[in-house]
Amino acid sequence: MLSLTPRPSPVAPTVDFAAAGVQHGHLRLPYSRDDSAWGSVMIPICVIAHGEGPTALLTGANHGDEYEGPAALFELARTLRPEEVQGRVIIVPALNYPAFRAGTRTSPIDRGNLNRSFPGRPDGTVTEKIADFVTRHLVPMADMVLDFHSGGKTLDFLPYAAAHALPDKDQEARCFAAVAAFSAPYSMRMLEIDAVGMLDTTVEEMGKVFVTTELGGAGTASATSIAVARRGAVNLLRHVGILKGEPETARTYWLDMPSADCFAFAGDDGLVAFAVDLGAKVRAGDLIARIYPIGRTGEAPAEYRASMDGVLAARHVPGLIKAGDCLSVLAVVTDA
Amino acid sequence: MLSLTPRPSPVAPTVDFAAAGVQHGHLRLPYSRDDSAWGSVMIPICVIAHGEGPTALLTGANHGDEYEGPAALFELARTLRPEEVQGRVIIVPALNYPAFRAGTRTSPIDRGNLNRSFPGRPDGTVTEKIADFVTRHLVPMADMVLDFHSGGKTLDFLPYAAAHALPDKDQEARCFAAVAAFSAPYSMRMLEIDAVGMLDTTVEEMGKVFVTTELGGAGTASATSIAVARRGAVNLLRHVGILKGEPETARTYWLDMPSADCFAFAGDDGLVAFAVDLGAKVRAGDLIARIYPIGRTGEAPAEYRASMDGVLAARHVPGLIKAGDCLSVLAVVTDA
Amino acid sequence: MLSLTPRPSPVAPTVDFAAAGVQHGHLRLPYSRDDSAWGSVMIPICVIAHGEGPTALLTGANHGDEYEGPAALFELARTLRPEEVQGRVIIVPALNYPAFRAGTRTSPIDRGNLNRSFPGRPDGTVTEKIADFVTRHLVPMADMVLDFHSGGKTLDFLPYAAAHALPDKDQEARCFAAVAAFSAPYSMRMLEIDAVGMLDTTVEEMGKVFVTTELGGAGTASATSIAVARRGAVNLLRHVGILKGEPETARTYWLDMPSADCFAFAGDDGLVAFAVDLGAKVRAGDLIARIYPIGRTGEAPAEYRASMDGVLAARHVPGLIKAGDCLSVLAVVTDA
Amino acid sequence: MLSLTPRPSPVAPTVDFAAAGVQHGHLRLPYSRDDSAWGSVMIPICVIAHGEGPTALLTGANHGDEYEGPAALFELARTLRPEEVQGRVIIVPALNYPAFRAGTRTSPIDRGNLNRSFPGRPDGTVTEKIADFVTRHLVPMADMVLDFHSGGKTLDFLPYAAAHALPDKDQEARCFAAVAAFSAPYSMRMLEIDAVGMLDTTVEEMGKVFVTTELGGAGTASATSIAVARRGAVNLLRHVGILKGEPETARTYWLDMPSADCFAFAGDDGLVAFAVDLGAKVRAGDLIARIYPIGRTGEAPAEYRASMDGVLAARHVPGLIKAGDCLSVLAVVTDA
Amino acid sequence: MLSLTPRPSPVAPTVDFAAAGVQHGHLRLPYSRDDSAWGSVMIPICVIAHGEGPTALLTGANHGDEYEGPAALFELARTLRPEEVQGRVIIVPALNYPAFRAGTRTSPIDRGNLNRSFPGRPDGTVTEKIADFVTRHLVPMADMVLDFHSGGKTLDFLPYAAAHALPDKDQEARCFAAVAAFSAPYSMRMLEIDAVGMLDTTVEEMGKVFVTTELGGAGTASATSIAVARRGAVNLLRHVGILKGEPETARTYWLDMPSADCFAFAGDDGLVAFAVDLGAKVRAGDLIARIYPIGRTGEAPAEYRASMDGVLAARHVPGLIKAGDCLSVLAVVTDA
Amino acid sequence: MLSLTPRPSPVAPTVDFAAAGVQHGHLRLPYSRDDSAWGSVMIPICVIAHGEGPTALLTGANHGDEYEGPAALFELARTLRPEEVQGRVIIVPALNYPAFRAGTRTSPIDRGNLNRSFPGRPDGTVTEKIADFVTRHLVPMADMVLDFHSGGKTLDFLPYAAAHALPDKDQEARCFAAVAAFSAPYSMRMLEIDAVGMLDTTVEEMGKVFVTTELGGAGTASATSIAVARRGAVNLLRHVGILKGEPETARTYWLDMPSADCFAFAGDDGLVAFAVDLGAKVRAGDLIARIYPIGRTGEAPAEYRASMDGVLAARHVPGLIKAGDCLSVLAVVTDA
Repeated sequence: MLSLTPRPSPVAPTVDFAAAGVQHGHLRLPYSRDDSAWGSVMIPICVIAHGEGPTALLTGANHGDEYEGPAALFELARTLRPEEVQGRVIIVPALNYPAFRAGTRTSPIDRGNLNRSFPGRPDGTVTEKIADFVTRHLVPMADMVLDFHSGGKTLDFLPYAAAHALPDKDQEARCFAAVAAFSAPYSMRMLEIDAVGMLDTTVEEMGKVFVTTELGGAGTASATSIAVARRGAVNLLRHVGILKGEPETARTYWLDMPSADCFAFAGDDGLVAFAVDLGAKVRAGDLIARIYPIGRTGEAPAEYRASMDGVLAARHVPGLIKAGDCLSVLAVVTDA
Repeated sequence: MLSLTPRPSPVAPTVDFAAAGVQHGHLRLPYSRDDSAWGSVMIPICVIAHGEGPTALLTGANHGDEYEGPAALFELARTLRPEEVQGRVIIVPALNYPAFRAGTRTSPIDRGNLNRSFPGRPDGTVTEKIADFVTRHLVPMADMVLDFHSGGKTLDFLPYAAAHALPDKDQEARCFAAVAAFSAPYSMRMLEIDAVGMLDTTVEEMGKVFVTTELGGAGTASATSIAVARRGAVNLLRHVGILKGEPETARTYWLDMPSADCFAFAGDDGLVAFAVDLGAKVRAGDLIARIYPIGRTGEAPAEYRASMDGVLAARHVPGLIKAGDCLSVLAVVTDA
Repeated sequence: MLSLTPRPSPVAPTVDFAAAGVQHGHLRLPYSRDDSAWGSVMIPICVIAHGEGPTALLTGANHGDEYEGPAALFELARTLRPEEVQGRVIIVPALNYPAFRAGTRTSPIDRGNLNRSFPGRPDGTVTEKIADFVTRHLVPMADMVLDFHSGGKTLDFLPYAAAHALPDKDQEARCFAAVAAFSAPYSMRMLEIDAVGMLDTTVEEMGKVFVTTELGGAGTASATSIAVARRGAVNLLRHVGILKGEPETARTYWLDMPSADCFAFAGDDGLVAFAVDLGAKVRAGDLIARIYPIGRTGEAPAEYRASMDGVLAARHVPGLIKAGDCLSVLAVVTDA
Repeated sequence: MLSLTPRPSPVAPTVDFAAAGVQHGHLRLPYSRDDSAWGSVMIPICVIAHGEGPTALLTGANHGDEYEGPAALFELARTLRPEEVQGRVIIVPALNYPAFRAGTRTSPIDRGNLNRSFPGRPDGTVTEKIADFVTRHLVPMADMVLDFHSGGKTLDFLPYAAAHALPDKDQEARCFAAVAAFSAPYSMRMLEIDAVGMLDTTVEEMGKVFVTTELGGAGTASATSIAVARRGAVNLLRHVGILKGEPETARTYWLDMPSADCFAFAGDDGLVAFAVDLGAKVRAGDLIARIYPIGRTGEAPAEYRASMDGVLAARHVPGLIKAGDCLSVLAVVTDA
Repeated sequence: MLSLTPRPSPVAPTVDFAAAGVQHGHLRLPYSRDDSAWGSVMIPICVIAHGEGPTALLTGANHGDEYEGPAALFELARTLRPEEVQGRVIIVPALNYPAFRAGTRTSPIDRGNLNRSFPGRPDGTVTEKIADFVTRHLVPMADMVLDFHSGGKTLDFLPYAAAHALPDKDQEARCFAAVAAFSAPYSMRMLEIDAVGMLDTTVEEMGKVFVTTELGGAGTASATSIAVARRGAVNLLRHVGILKGEPETARTYWLDMPSADCFAFAGDDGLVAFAVDLGAKVRAGDLIARIYPIGRTGEAPAEYRASMDGVLAARHVPGLIKAGDCLSVLAVVTDA
Repeated sequence: MLSLTPRPSPVAPTVDFAAAGVQHGHLRLPYSRDDSAWGSVMIPICVIAHGEGPTALLTGANHGDEYEGPAALFELARTLRPEEVQGRVIIVPALNYPAFRAGTRTSPIDRGNLNRSFPGRPDGTVTEKIADFVTRHLVPMADMVLDFHSGGKTLDFLPYAAAHALPDKDQEARCFAAVAAFSAPYSMRMLEIDAVGMLDTTVEEMGKVFVTTELGGAGTASATSIAVARRGAVNLLRHVGILKGEPETARTYWLDMPSADCFAFAGDDGLVAFAVDLGAKVRAGDLIARIYPIGRTGEAPAEYRASMDGVLAARHVPGLIKAGDCLSVLAVVTDA
């Protein structure tokens, strides 16, 4: 028999989403395991509400090894005062908390990639249960969702905010207006290589304004990239009217990823030596990187060349690369 | 009974160090184990010799997750022609080859930190056997040793070449002259926090010219840092007369680490958010970084402030930090 | 196409459930893996049958680190003679045998928590296949099911037998009569925090008499708790008429868990120091335990206090605790 | 809502199945993970096409630790010239490439047993995605499929090609004709102990000619068994007219597995000492092997005896055996 | 060349042992590793000094899974006021801090058993470096050392304080006087089965007063056992005059371990079912425990019987036991 | 201070080496660890003594994954009656018992390769403690030592018994006479590539008769190879007069390994395809094996050719090979 009413979420929040003021609490998700028979995962959450107004959902560490979001959001949660807010801000600085705590992209519990697990399942893995709670409880409360990403431990990106092309052109316009308000150094019309299961799609399909980012990577964050993230979050809250004042804008370069040709994948294992750095302008045919076989000296490296004119928007981070890894992403500057 | 003659090294080189021309071979080190009863570790080595002249030993990946050295040296080994050489160049692009292959600082075989294992032991662990062969066979052949380092996966450095204060002031002067010839963006009079077991000391105690580097980090290398490494290696070979021509110099900033106060260590676990980036000038008391507890929102972060005036010369990389990790290193600019 | 007839179970029993006498055999469950291409899991089972009468199913190690059940049931299987029996006794001393063999709550094969895997799937994981065989083959043969539990390695309980409130009040009464016959030191009207997937529900929904227990914990069993388990099993077999004679009763204290407030969860990581022991009577507001941060001396511990009047019925075992772990369970004495 | 159109496969081939000539490429399967955020699995594939004619699909390393297939197919892919071919040959020497690379039966990514994962799922695990691509894209192009197996690291077999009894007797006859053309030392009418999820069934249900093999085992291949595999593959290509000439036949012994009694499973852990070797003729009751308890000397071993007359067709390889492992397989010679 | 002056300890304390008042700091021990190139182990330490008087060194978690010591000492360090002290109290609540943090007996870094690593080495493993610092820096400052132990995760003990028979009978008398002052429920004249490398011997050989304990086990602590530990520590500080007042004594039973016959070791793997509990009086020949083979029902268990008259002073905890594990320890009551 | 008297062995045998008759017991070696605080390793041992006569020490599983020795010796220990013996037979079927139990060459406890750990240390690792007990307690009791080896999981050998060239030619002659008496299909004058730390040398330096073997490999044993091992052991006991009667001889081929050129090592990673099988006669220059790169089809394999005329005496087993692995060993037939 197929059930028509979905099972309720096992997540028990310790905050009251309807209450005014500042609340620091947890999403408690039961997780029975060998080292804790009746244990739980405790995901930190902060709710700041005051008066009438829209709701913004701000999330970081959807992938556990991406740090601009958590750095900006732990600070924002600590410093934002309710009287500054008109409406409600829900902050989850580390959405895939088990992954964040482990410093890994995916969850150490179930190897779940949270951003490939939406809309989730209430009776699935821990990662799927988080996705389900976000889908059925957090996103419906929100008018606008900002989900922070960067390259994690294995990719590095030019710092950009992004939205996607959407079938509803009005919604698309609202999303890109929000990207502009975020005001990162770069702004991207983004193409996903594998969009199935993403929070992005889940939010967009509910008709909400959605902004994502890629603000650096290499498993860390810099003073500069954290500042971009903080300013962007505040700008967005101003843009939707939750905070007073105008967004503090700065020069942004608009980029586009016109096709899957933007992505280059390694066909060889070895030591990767890039010939150009992030942000460099390249012409089709320019050398991007060499991959050296590591078992012997004297062997010729494989050479990877640009498939199109553009700027180097993303690159592989670790010194060693494996066949199949994404080597680089090129983007086209559309407002040069 | 204590033996007076040390046991011979088990390492069998497949190159002839006395032969002229280019040889690409291996240092074969027997390593019996569960998945290969009569297996070996095969460390790539290249010897390029021509005519009379000094010998330079160039080594990379002494720590397995540091990539400027291997990237410069695999390329140099592949492209250097014997007729360009006057003397001999011995290149080992990945000295702790098991660690390099695993992408880790230390060896996956025995968790050996090669640069804390010198002078090594012929009957010790695999890492100690590598150190012993270097100490007793490679270094004695060399007049000059260049050992490439960077920050690996957990530290990031301003790009510098370095030498140490030495008791023999003449030797010290020759080392710093070599550092100057290397011509990295920064040049350091380096203080070691834990010098026991380093290749540096082993080479210096034999009275040789020794240059080390820290050229970046974060478990990767950039086009820029690889170019610094390549140019530096060629400059040094020119400096000692193995290659013709003068070193190609560039502006370098001289730095000093006057005391152990340069180093700051985390006293707390958490999410680290730097307030300044590498190369930034700071005054004593300036905020360097915050460390946020990650289990709850709303908690005050621990603040770490500069202990002295200087520039930020190194920093912790991963977004999470643990109590005891080196948070930052400050250095003093001595030629400003 | 959705299949209407479920796939047959892959489990092959080596015993004949219809035969009289004593049989010691296995449930053989094919499990192909790297270290055994055509391997199987072999779950020990014993069937003792004689004459006409009801069937009792006695199971232990549903969670692999709970030992009173296996200790009582290996002994009972070895010593019960068919001529003592009127009907049939099916004994599976270690239901999640892979977990039992590993000494872990969940299966080392698939991390399956057997008691969250019912009713199971014939084409699922190994744990789900065990659940499916129990659901479709063992339980239907039984009139009464006794499933032994204790706290495992991470919880410790007052020794009690238990049944649940059930919609069918007649069935509920039969279950509590069986609990009374078991005659443990304590008897519980039990509340489950997460009842989905439990054997309990599966059996109860088939209308059978079901008794469960929590007889201690800490990953071990004592001479005393094993004696309680043995006496309880024999008492139940007498109660249903499979063995002759009356249950050997003893004083039992009846407990109730009136609401989810019985459970306390840690909000902090650290060293747990209980202020009261199992069985202690507490008043609302009494100190139950302190949790000390472990990274520094001199820090104030978090204090956890009783949410209600009652007795301490269960507690966390390991000296260290993590946020989200169940710290304690209080119960109310209903027959004092 | 149940979807009626299946999701497209995420696999991106870098070869053009419609092109003539020789192509060496990959099946690129996106696989996001901690050590490669946008990584892929790269499965080598070769397509050799020329003129009109049937298509043969030749696959090895369906289980990653079986080596006759890969050894024959890497060689065939390298040496077969298009002008020799009439039709098309698709060669995937290592179908479960992650398992093959790890030297394990199942995939190190998801522990997937590829030959129990058919027909697969486009949104499943990596192993299920491979199965799905084979089912929906490779097999439909083929007229004949040859899938190489041997015993892997834990079983050893007499060298045989095999087909199954099929409901369509005409198809069955074509399959056995192909087995005869393969001309291995033994030819088997094979019984599967657990046929759910096999490539065999998937291909057979599409009405294609399917040949499988068991050509040895013990985690290796011999010069002899590789020669059998190579000759068999060429023979089959000749048999279906893709290559010119007649199959090069040799004496084959026809075997049958009349029932599940062929299989013997260990009931004990210990050291296994076989009393007969592969190919030996045994009578019902003959000693096949002893299993010694290993904790003490002086204990009596368990003895395992033949359940029927036949030849020893397969045996357990590792010196230690666990209860539930397949100890031996007997077969009946049908053409003696 | 053999060095005559030992290398200095790499440990850097952040407390000043000569200063008055309360200090909460760390012993910082550099530990370079893959996940922290310049990392350290940070062992919490507290020094409370006031006026002239003796020095007491109080240590816990010498084995990382023993909790009475840490629970008593974190509390004592937090609450003891300098003005109560006459002399100095040095408290290290978790001596093998890496093991304590991991909840394991031995260090996760090097698997070092700290209490088999004394006197340690300054250039050894992390565990040996801790031992060396204790031996050369902490113990020499102390007049009295109290080192808390219990049974850890695999043993459980009657709660006792203990001293050893010593060659210096005057020292022995002072040690047993201190044991009497501690006033645990039991007091033991202890026999060590493997005394090489213990802190005990190191301290005793320096002529100091040394008290050790075994206060329970099973990887936890109870409200009762923590209270015994706290009272014992305070009693000892009173006994040596650091705290004012008389020890608060209670009835203690004196026990002796006359020979190695006290210890019983399992000769079989299996499920252990004790027949008597801790503190029970047994006669030679009484059943102590049965060990059941777990692969089949119906097998006879091995029976272990008392080798002497005495009380059960310690037992194996986990439900499963392996050949070679210590099953039980008997002791003789000497003051009955 | 250097100690002159070595520390006593911690090993406690449960057998009396001076007693007559059959004893089955253990060598109990204390091994404290996380999962057993006071645990031990229990190595099975059997002593069979009767009347006056020499002592033979028979050992298997010096490497844990070699099975002819254990299979022959568990059987011999079980079946040899004291009245058949004149003198004493000490049988240790699994010398590196932890490795044997794990099915690995080296010990899972410390990764110790027992046959590179002699003479051992009483205060070293578990493996070194075993070696020390053998060196100081077992070998001195023996007149003759037979140590069984085969290729383990990664090598396969022609079945031979062997002795070494020794400085004492009389001892050498006695050793080769014993090899002849063993009467394996092949007999070898063996060259060791790495003799440091072997039991062989330890025994030979005490002037004893020592026989070793290589009787197959691939991580298993066949009916044939076990029969060779059993007959050889009995033949040796007859040869030295412990058993009555003459050795039962058979045709043996004498082989020699004239130099290190016998050994070939892989210089490449990949899939290995042998062109000849064990026992095949080859001429210098004949193809021995190909190694295929596995990442792509169409690549040329590396070819390995015979360095000398001879027979293939040993080969690599796993289908995949790594650079540095021993590919093959050639031997010269000296009695053809």
